[in-house]
Amino acid sequence: MSAKLPFSSVCIIGSGLIGTSIGLALANKGISVTMLDQDSRTQGIAQALMGNEGGDISGAELVISAVPVSAFPMVIQTLERTIFKGVLIDVASIKAKPVLEVSNSRLEPTRFLPTHPMAGREFSGVESARGDLFEGRPWMIDSSGVDQQTLAWGKALIESLGAQVIDMPAADHDQAVALVSHLPQLISSLLAKQLAGKPVSWLELSGAGLRDTTRIAASDPLLWKEIIVANSSAIAPLLKSLASDLNDLISHLEGESFVAGVITEGQAGRALIPGKHGGKAREYTHLPIVIEDKPGQLAAIFDECAKVSVNIEDLSIEHSPGQQTGLITLAVSHSDAMTLKAHLESEGWDVHAPRS
Amino acid sequence: MSAKLPFSSVCIIGSGLIGTSIGLALANKGISVTMLDQDSRTQGIAQALMGNEGGDISGAELVISAVPVSAFPMVIQTLERTIFKGVLIDVASIKAKPVLEVSNSRLEPTRFLPTHPMAGREFSGVESARGDLFEGRPWMIDSSGVDQQTLAWGKALIESLGAQVIDMPAADHDQAVALVSHLPQLISSLLAKQLAGKPVSWLELSGAGLRDTTRIAASDPLLWKEIIVANSSAIAPLLKSLASDLNDLISHLEGESFVAGVITEGQAGRALIPGKHGGKAREYTHLPIVIEDKPGQLAAIFDECAKVSVNIEDLSIEHSPGQQTGLITLAVSHSDAMTLKAHLESEGWDVHAPRS
Repeated sequence: MSAKLPFSSVCIIGSGLIGTSIGLALANKGISVTMLDQDSRTQGIAQALMGNEGGDISGAELVISAVPVSAFPMVIQTLERTIFKGVLIDVASIKAKPVLEVSNSRLEPTRFLPTHPMAGREFSGVESARGDLFEGRPWMIDSSGVDQQTLAWGKALIESLGAQVIDMPAADHDQAVALVSHLPQLISSLLAKQLAGKPVSWLELSGAGLRDTTRIAASDPLLWKEIIVANSSAIAPLLKSLASDLNDLISHLEGESFVAGVITEGQAGRALIPGKHGGKAREYTHLPIVIEDKPGQLAAIFDECAKVSVNIEDLSIEHSPGQQTGLITLAVSHSDAMTLKAHLESEGWDVHAPRS
Repeated sequence: MSAKLPFSSVCIIGSGLIGTSIGLALANKGISVTMLDQDSRTQGIAQALMGNEGGDISGAELVISAVPVSAFPMVIQTLERTIFKGVLIDVASIKAKPVLEVSNSRLEPTRFLPTHPMAGREFSGVESARGDLFEGRPWMIDSSGVDQQTLAWGKALIESLGAQVIDMPAADHDQAVALVSHLPQLISSLLAKQLAGKPVSWLELSGAGLRDTTRIAASDPLLWKEIIVANSSAIAPLLKSLASDLNDLISHLEGESFVAGVITEGQAGRALIPGKHGGKAREYTHLPIVIEDKPGQLAAIFDECAKVSVNIEDLSIEHSPGQQTGLITLAVSHSDAMTLKAHLESEGWDVHAPRS
């Protein structure tokens, strides 16, 4: 069980992936969550997920801004109008810019904690939100010049969501995310772009390597253009370094020892990524089931799950065009996996060995 | 149950990830599998996994070569010495080179089926082998000039492993894998290389995006240097195209519309990849439904879909353990979405506005 939170209500501005995911996690802990968004459809879905009616921003003790970088000045203006005295936390992907914007406003800078959760998905929007999005993830804060209550509330919020607080100056953060987030995003996009105009039959050979390297290429251009441009001075030297390495590789592509060197240097770089984070709290068991590719099979599997009271936490469906069979992988608790496997096998389903 | 295989025994040369995984899958189906490897330790582990004593290569009816590209000429020499009359299948990552080597040998070219399973892991070796490695994966063959029995055996082998046969000329294959496999490998390695020498605190902010884009950077340099150099003529133009795009991006990094264009082109490229969330022909409408997080809710929704004859094309479930509500998003045709929304609302479900 988590410790009791020092606040009882929160107002979250921005009902996208990050804002709604924070809201879900807090609502689950009994916090009264008000979701706001410029888009009333989005706000309606987000508020319905919170299981309460919501309120408004006036008199809020804690406001979390989860809007795109370009919309933060509007959040500041809104709070200025309500003569806001509470704690303000933002979660935008870059940090020097919002810090500067608050310091140039009538808001109290000591009551503003700039933060950045290192969690996201290639799918944005309220429909992709999940309360465990931050479990085991790093969550950067910049505590410099922040008052004790604001810092304590921010840390309590982050830790209650299962994330790990990493305190660093905003300027250092922006250098770091240029390397670990913005560079991979741009390179993934450039890689995926190379697929355009190529024969469809070539793409049918796509495997997991291409899928993984281009997963984040599916990300939202409207969100990313702001982030990239706002942090371009930190990103440019990294792109230039990679371009230089790429030109060297092109010049030596027929040399086995040079190519082996590139792959070896990549191995060494990959090994520098810390292994602790990344959804460690989602310890589901994955149960693969091979099904015939025809209507009604999914419904039938869910009926079977209901019969034995098994709760499905997540699932994936993999099948290729024209294939006679598909692979459904259900993510369930370990004990549910054992129950379900035995039940499905007794009913004649093609269930394979589970993996953790 | 899979159909009976047309052969009862197989000799697999090369006990690495691919060879041993094929062996495991066949041994599970009752085929007698002999594993061979230059490395006696590896061969010993692989043979133990097969659950039999193994035999030798003389008189083998089916030989599968699963050795690195550079070792295939030695396989040919070995088979020439045994006056081999059986079926030979290879699984190397490039195809024009082994085809040429067989045609220049004393082996019968019509008894050789060049193939390439599009499955792999960033971890190589016998210890990483798994019998389900090929489930749902594409597996390329080049059937041109191959006799009927050889082709039939090859197809039976591949289908029995759960993979999908894709028939294309060897030269086309080598162009295709330059794009969908070799290019992502090199770019992932170059990206991971940029992490070297950076502050450890920066890397603590690493999220799933960096992890996924650099996963295959952990691959084996010894295997990859051979593949890259052997296929360098197909890879070079792709690297040059990416380098040109990268230079353009560096020149326009402060322009929001240019950066948005790069991300948008990446999205379009990503969407060309077939399979889960690839979706070139998948123009579905997404219907969000907020449900109580208890067993039976999913089955109930599928029952409702069946009542109004709505076909579910895909779905996602977003909720976390212990959360009171969950969000189901159903992907259906636009007309089905309208039908289903009206029906579910009349039955009291909490359905929200659909999006395309």
